[in-house]
Amino acid sequence: MAHFINERSGLVTDAIDGLLAASGGTLARLDGYPEIRVVLRAELDPGKVAVISGGGSGHEPAHAGFVGPGMLSAAICGDVFASPSVDAVLAGILAATGPAGCLLVVKNYAGDRLNFGLAAERARAAGIKVETVLVADDIALPDAAQPRGIAGTLFVHKIAGHAAVTDASLDAVAAIARRTAGAVQSLGIAVSTATIPGSSPEQRLAEGEAELGLGIHGEPGIERITLPKAAALARQMTERFSGTVAASQRLALLVNNLGSATALEMQILTKAVLDTPLGARVALVLGPAPAMTALDMHGVSLSFLALDDELEAALLAQTDVPAWPRARPVAAPLVRALPDGLRGAPEPTPSHDAAAAGAVTAVCEALIGAEASLNALDAKVGDGDTGSTFAGGARAVLGDLDRLPQADAAALCRALGERLGRAAGGSSGVLMSIFFAAAGSALSDGVSWPTALARGVERVRDYGGAGPGDRTMLDALIPAVEALETGGLEAAARAARDGAAATASMQRAGTGRSSYLAASDLAGHEDPGAVAVAIAFEALAGLPRGAPK
Amino acid sequence: MAHFINERSGLVTDAIDGLLAASGGTLARLDGYPEIRVVLRAELDPGKVAVISGGGSGHEPAHAGFVGPGMLSAAICGDVFASPSVDAVLAGILAATGPAGCLLVVKNYAGDRLNFGLAAERARAAGIKVETVLVADDIALPDAAQPRGIAGTLFVHKIAGHAAVTDASLDAVAAIARRTAGAVQSLGIAVSTATIPGSSPEQRLAEGEAELGLGIHGEPGIERITLPKAAALARQMTERFSGTVAASQRLALLVNNLGSATALEMQILTKAVLDTPLGARVALVLGPAPAMTALDMHGVSLSFLALDDELEAALLAQTDVPAWPRARPVAAPLVRALPDGLRGAPEPTPSHDAAAAGAVTAVCEALIGAEASLNALDAKVGDGDTGSTFAGGARAVLGDLDRLPQADAAALCRALGERLGRAAGGSSGVLMSIFFAAAGSALSDGVSWPTALARGVERVRDYGGAGPGDRTMLDALIPAVEALETGGLEAAARAARDGAAATASMQRAGTGRSSYLAASDLAGHEDPGAVAVAIAFEALAGLPRGAPK
Repeated sequence: MAHFINERSGLVTDAIDGLLAASGGTLARLDGYPEIRVVLRAELDPGKVAVISGGGSGHEPAHAGFVGPGMLSAAICGDVFASPSVDAVLAGILAATGPAGCLLVVKNYAGDRLNFGLAAERARAAGIKVETVLVADDIALPDAAQPRGIAGTLFVHKIAGHAAVTDASLDAVAAIARRTAGAVQSLGIAVSTATIPGSSPEQRLAEGEAELGLGIHGEPGIERITLPKAAALARQMTERFSGTVAASQRLALLVNNLGSATALEMQILTKAVLDTPLGARVALVLGPAPAMTALDMHGVSLSFLALDDELEAALLAQTDVPAWPRARPVAAPLVRALPDGLRGAPEPTPSHDAAAAGAVTAVCEALIGAEASLNALDAKVGDGDTGSTFAGGARAVLGDLDRLPQADAAALCRALGERLGRAAGGSSGVLMSIFFAAAGSALSDGVSWPTALARGVERVRDYGGAGPGDRTMLDALIPAVEALETGGLEAAARAARDGAAATASMQRAGTGRSSYLAASDLAGHEDPGAVAVAIAFEALAGLPRGAPK
Repeated sequence: MAHFINERSGLVTDAIDGLLAASGGTLARLDGYPEIRVVLRAELDPGKVAVISGGGSGHEPAHAGFVGPGMLSAAICGDVFASPSVDAVLAGILAATGPAGCLLVVKNYAGDRLNFGLAAERARAAGIKVETVLVADDIALPDAAQPRGIAGTLFVHKIAGHAAVTDASLDAVAAIARRTAGAVQSLGIAVSTATIPGSSPEQRLAEGEAELGLGIHGEPGIERITLPKAAALARQMTERFSGTVAASQRLALLVNNLGSATALEMQILTKAVLDTPLGARVALVLGPAPAMTALDMHGVSLSFLALDDELEAALLAQTDVPAWPRARPVAAPLVRALPDGLRGAPEPTPSHDAAAAGAVTAVCEALIGAEASLNALDAKVGDGDTGSTFAGGARAVLGDLDRLPQADAAALCRALGERLGRAAGGSSGVLMSIFFAAAGSALSDGVSWPTALARGVERVRDYGGAGPGDRTMLDALIPAVEALETGGLEAAARAARDGAAATASMQRAGTGRSSYLAASDLAGHEDPGAVAVAIAFEALAGLPRGAPK
């Protein structure tokens, strides 16, 4: 896969420059490129304890994205997934630290321990007050001698950063940071690995597989599992938390996007976690948001912090750092009643008519049966949902069949229009709704079926803005309705099928999403809406799908 | 690929529930599941114009994530990539709109036009004041009859939302919204398509390819290109902007992550865009951030808005909506001088010694030559950077060769330690730094080479916490240094190679990232740090790499 970069060697410095450019002048960097990559607050207060963190890059917004008032004073950025050098850490300490001293927040990796540790020793030798807190929140291996530091580190940044701006002493800042580090546990799950920009992706996982307890550097997980549904996954993950976290009655939860999980998934998983027994004790939720990522890994980590009043106040304190996923109190969902006046007309009186019910059923079943093939056809020229749109509408109609006014053709058409307007999304759905509503109105004026359907076609052209030859369902619907007058249903079905077939050679779509495609992408593919119309008329006429003439 | 969901059919409602749960009680929804999915502010002020938007889901945080004070009053959520139904839109209008009326912000797609348009007509028939603004900001096809609405829609949300909270009339809100829509242009680029959670990914693009001018629903781009470097891409994209935007001397820029581009790439591209002629006229930058996504598409869109004082003030106005990518003034990067005291000792006096230079050169060149193979080995058991760490250090040393005190062994060792501490990240880098620093100090105490190197080994064990058998470079270094005393360089090289080979059968790593792996993942793979040590000793001894005994 291609990546949006310049030179691989300039990955981190280029990115830091971009961060600074978009920071509104709140961030600065040290003049130490390429080796020394230190981001610091443009305005530092030497009277306050400096809170400094950092580590390998590739975890953005961590760490440089958390530099700002009430959080970090400076961040030291290593290469992607590699600890920064001792000199880089030392430069950050010297640049950001005043008489109040500094706290180094270090994730528990050998490299970070060594580099931050040696830098701290050098700084102390130069007369600077330095304290260090190690974060080792990963519970993937419960009996690991050296648990990793992962997203729970964010809690330490925020709480130590808040203590520092409230003029706490270095000892006090270090103490609350250590208390936080001791009260947080994290666990990650992912369905893909991380790809370093400029490299090729690795495919370690089979379809449907996930890794539980993986690291934030692409390290394999402790366990490879078949990914369960979100609710079951949330239970499985939350059951692994133990000790202080499991014992706490009041928790904060950070739902961290490891990179490329979609927002939909993140929101689904957040709800699933809050619905578990452990989740029920969450008082504050942070995210879902990318906070400590692993490049583009498709995964998520959960970090739980056992709260007390002091930690909670520090988490809730306002900060001007854009990347900080604000802590919000968990509240019961607010559900409002549907507004009055949503249904225009009263429901029509149900009635039974075998022929009408049979015709409606035949069309609906044919469209439901064609869902996958219409989706596949649409995937080539659009967004792949035509089959689901028609099938969704058909299911809603079938489910309501006994409540329809089957014996009153005009009322039946209007009721179909009403139901399709409610159940079917997409332009096809609403156009079908318009079609049936207009046809129903025409039928109640006493016109014939062919004339009524022609009225429906007219309104579809008005609202949708398409005409014949524009590669839409009209290319099947218009000839079908015309043929109906003279040749009956079978002629209409054959005309619809011919019309649908003709769309395959139409070089340009006049409307809808296909209109954004080049002619070469369209060539040879029938318009899925037109095919759906043909299928419907074939079902009405009792012909097999795509029947030859 | 597996996804973090429950049922595919509940994708959108489950996600909305998660959004609400994490909203701190600021958001509510209508009781219309599954068809009617409307998110609205928990507290609506009927005295102010309601600003309502929506469309297909899959674009999160758009649209529901932008519901909040100063932005949207309500968002209507369709299925993934499908417009919401007329009834859903109508429900949102009825629920969110008071006597001041409402503005519908509609992206220019046939489905949205139809559904929002029909709903607006029904609402008007019920006596509600409704205005509609269409956003058609996509410039992928400059002569398109119906340009799409993409991320530029966010500017309309923010500016109309701000006008509404300042008590502007419906006409005034609609007017500024239309002015904004007329002053914004957007263009997207992506290197992967979007995958709907629960579906399998489609691979439309070859390695190194990108699509320019693609849509936010997975529609193919207008042009398939070989992705250039970020700077060239930024020039190529910005040159396509025209009309109002190209003529404006003061622009706002939204850098929108379409889904899974890494933060590193987004920051790099932001800087690249700001460095173009068009970018030089950007006064306000928003993002980089996910704002109008296409699920997990790896891509980015640029939206430029021609500013005037009124639009700028509305963009800068404070809003409490977490997903809003705050507008920040573009400022020159702040670069601070490196702090004094960073270099402990003064630079040693350079000197020349052919043997020392030859030895250093041989080792460095061997390590540079092994970069790719060591990275590949490390990718199996760690994060794939060992080769680059050693090669990076080697390049820094080679580049400084003439400034090294070649003729003074102790000073040379200390200088190597100093340079490796500066240039090489990762634990291997700092351990090598410690190794040479300690060896240098020992040499200046007058001990022999083997004894000095043994002192280095001792310090590496102290700081790194590993010992023999822990699957680290020590497993090659310890036997090599021991063999040096009795057998000279060639024996040392063979001992190092044997030690490296032995790591392949060590079932558990005692330290470093490999320690998080299961035995089965380690089996048969040599530790890359140990192999690097073997390569270095072989180079010193003049043996070919991996020479047989």
